[in-house]
Amino acid sequence: MLQLEEAELLAARFKALSDPNRLRILSIVSSNQDAETCVCDLPGPLGLKQPTVSHHLKILVDAGILHREKRGVWAYFSVVPGALESLGSTLLPKA
Amino acid sequence: MLQLEEAELLAARFKALSDPNRLRILSIVSSNQDAETCVCDLPGPLGLKQPTVSHHLKILVDAGILHREKRGVWAYFSVVPGALESLGSTLLPKA
Repeated sequence: MLQLEEAELLAARFKALSDPNRLRILSIVSSNQDAETCVCDLPGPLGLKQPTVSHHLKILVDAGILHREKRGVWAYFSVVPGALESLGSTLLPKA
Repeated sequence: MLQLEEAELLAARFKALSDPNRLRILSIVSSNQDAETCVCDLPGPLGLKQPTVSHHLKILVDAGILHREKRGVWAYFSVVPGALESLGSTLLPKA
């Protein structure tokens, strides 16, 4: 059985994924496999305002799912290597 | 980009997983790969009362993650085939 401490960590990450707009943000950022995504490029396709996008991005960063790097005026986001794989493998039956 | 309707469905499933006790229940039920798990066998290892376990089980059933079958006095639970795989593959980078 999953131990309580590990279950609490995983639950916090799943909570970060339990919002449709955050999943859409993640789908945009994770499809940029070789590059970062500028925060400035997100509001348009999502139909959201910048502060709303920034709120959701902060939750994904705090959960250890996205990495944030500020350069000049904008912040750039990328998926933390391994973060999604480890959650995905938690869900899949052990071989 | 993930479409809004699909994102809403996925977010609801991740929300069902965003609780440590539900993840622990799922880890017990999913490790019984060839058999169902009786609701009567869950409170002991989890250290929870039966009504609390039943509350969490209902959320997992409503989210389409667990299947419930009542036989006699007890209800028996199993993972809906493909439910976790589809969530897991959502998280993993497309090949």
